[in-house]
Amino acid sequence: MESQSKESREKIIQKVLAGNARAVAQLITIVENDPGEALPYLRQLFRHAGNCFSIGITGAPGAGKSTLVDQLAQAYRKIGKKVGIIAIDPSSPFTGGAILGDRIRMQSHRLDPGIFIRSMATRGRIGGLTRATEDVLTVMDSAGFEIVFIETVGVGQGEVEVAKTADATIVLLVPGMGDDIQLMKAGIMEIGDLFVINKADYPGAEKLQAGLQALLSMNPRSDGWNPYIVRTVATEGNGIEECRESIDAFRDFLNKSGRRRIKSVQLQKNRLLELVTERITQTLLNNKEAEARIQELASDIETRKLDPFTAAEELLDMLCPDRSKNIIVE
Amino acid sequence: MESQSKESREKIIQKVLAGNARAVAQLITIVENDPGEALPYLRQLFRHAGNCFSIGITGAPGAGKSTLVDQLAQAYRKIGKKVGIIAIDPSSPFTGGAILGDRIRMQSHRLDPGIFIRSMATRGRIGGLTRATEDVLTVMDSAGFEIVFIETVGVGQGEVEVAKTADATIVLLVPGMGDDIQLMKAGIMEIGDLFVINKADYPGAEKLQAGLQALLSMNPRSDGWNPYIVRTVATEGNGIEECRESIDAFRDFLNKSGRRRIKSVQLQKNRLLELVTERITQTLLNNKEAEARIQELASDIETRKLDPFTAAEELLDMLCPDRSKNIIVE
Repeated sequence: MESQSKESREKIIQKVLAGNARAVAQLITIVENDPGEALPYLRQLFRHAGNCFSIGITGAPGAGKSTLVDQLAQAYRKIGKKVGIIAIDPSSPFTGGAILGDRIRMQSHRLDPGIFIRSMATRGRIGGLTRATEDVLTVMDSAGFEIVFIETVGVGQGEVEVAKTADATIVLLVPGMGDDIQLMKAGIMEIGDLFVINKADYPGAEKLQAGLQALLSMNPRSDGWNPYIVRTVATEGNGIEECRESIDAFRDFLNKSGRRRIKSVQLQKNRLLELVTERITQTLLNNKEAEARIQELASDIETRKLDPFTAAEELLDMLCPDRSKNIIVE
Repeated sequence: MESQSKESREKIIQKVLAGNARAVAQLITIVENDPGEALPYLRQLFRHAGNCFSIGITGAPGAGKSTLVDQLAQAYRKIGKKVGIIAIDPSSPFTGGAILGDRIRMQSHRLDPGIFIRSMATRGRIGGLTRATEDVLTVMDSAGFEIVFIETVGVGQGEVEVAKTADATIVLLVPGMGDDIQLMKAGIMEIGDLFVINKADYPGAEKLQAGLQALLSMNPRSDGWNPYIVRTVATEGNGIEECRESIDAFRDFLNKSGRRRIKSVQLQKNRLLELVTERITQTLLNNKEAEARIQELASDIETRKLDPFTAAEELLDMLCPDRSKNIIVE
């Protein structure tokens, strides 16, 4: 990616703010490929963002996440909202990108400029992905997308982390997949603001709902929200309206209770710490002498001449010798 | 956890080095609960570690990971090796710990002091888990466990990260679970040093093996290793010996080709960077003034008065004002 002149950068920013899909796609590509290049854009767009409500969706593979998201996107379109979808796709080392391409899904929405779909490949770096997702969200947000779905593949802890960066998190379950245990497993009970039982025409939906309800009432949330449980058959569009209304109910709760602000400040705090550590790592790896010293230290650790804890302190002393003194804020 | 006196610490260290299971368990608990308290132990034990070969196992839930690991553990016991098992379990917010407790699995091995099993809960923090796993490995290693299995639940990216910290990584597949696609999905093709097709008596085992073989030969590894494919029926013990021999073949390859050292230095390098960023975060959060300033900054970001990138730089300037100048190594 060539460095953009300030003029052409300004042009792209204006187009993004005007909601131009091509410019949005172009900028997201920059965000994915060259975080340094993306920085001046993001800095400027950030001020214009803050109007969208993001919804993370997590659930076992095959639970019907994509179908549900597509249906919910349509439901929001019906009430006039502009909708973005970020599909976090696992990356194949062979294609170097996302397999479940957005191309196929785009087909059904392509005549509607009010829906923007983007796949992002994980490339094995969850930390980086959380950061990249936040940046893509900033772009979509500033481009006027009012509802953005963040759809993750799988229920691994990393995927859960990504879903947690959203304003609301939907946990998708399916009867008969041992979901009662799955629930407990991935630690996803606590992150669900809304539980959707999809394929609710399958046997076991009642039982799953009852079990879920019992678990939820045994463990009331500290913020006072009682997560809704909604049953859907996404392939037939059943329960979609109720699902959308439940999302909106949670959004109202967040706004009225003041929780949205508290949650958002917490997310920004985490983001800030991530940015700081990311910069530290970059500073170390981009400096030839530091990089060489790290290599030496790693080599000494490997031969057990040195332990990693002592080495980390040396590196830290080198980088920020007065770190404890420096952080006195007046 | 009370702070241990230097004397009692020395006692625990000696017991760990002598392979005392109770002391090993005690120290791992310290590692899990209080990283600061664990530090002096780890620093000292690190010098004595470096003799074990660690094997990460990843695969879809239900593929039979635990059964395979148990069988392989027995196979290594038969040739006189001391074996450790670290089972990375998802944590339930309700029990606060691992559900698939080690207690049940311990039953079958409990008469054998040559096997040590430990579950670790993810508690939603993958980064922290990778670090904790490395520390637990150091403890087991220094206690004389020669083979340590790291068994992860699920195939999320975070789980894959944990498996990658091992010397060898086994990817477990099952016929008829759409594994051909699963393979491509989680980006696990490139991390498998050994592929095990479990439940190989199910229909589709041949086809899966052929597909896998084709994928592997289309994409030769840069290190020159051709990953083995082994078929097992773990519940009946079929293929276990071959599986163990394949692991040993890979170990021989690593040692003879010099790849083990290269890989190990790379792992230590990553670990070093993680330790540095972890310390930076701790320094920031443990300092009252810094913590208050982060809160203020996050608040300003939330109201869009400030963008997170500018805030991160302020924080960084506060912490390490001369960071670029400081890292000149002579």
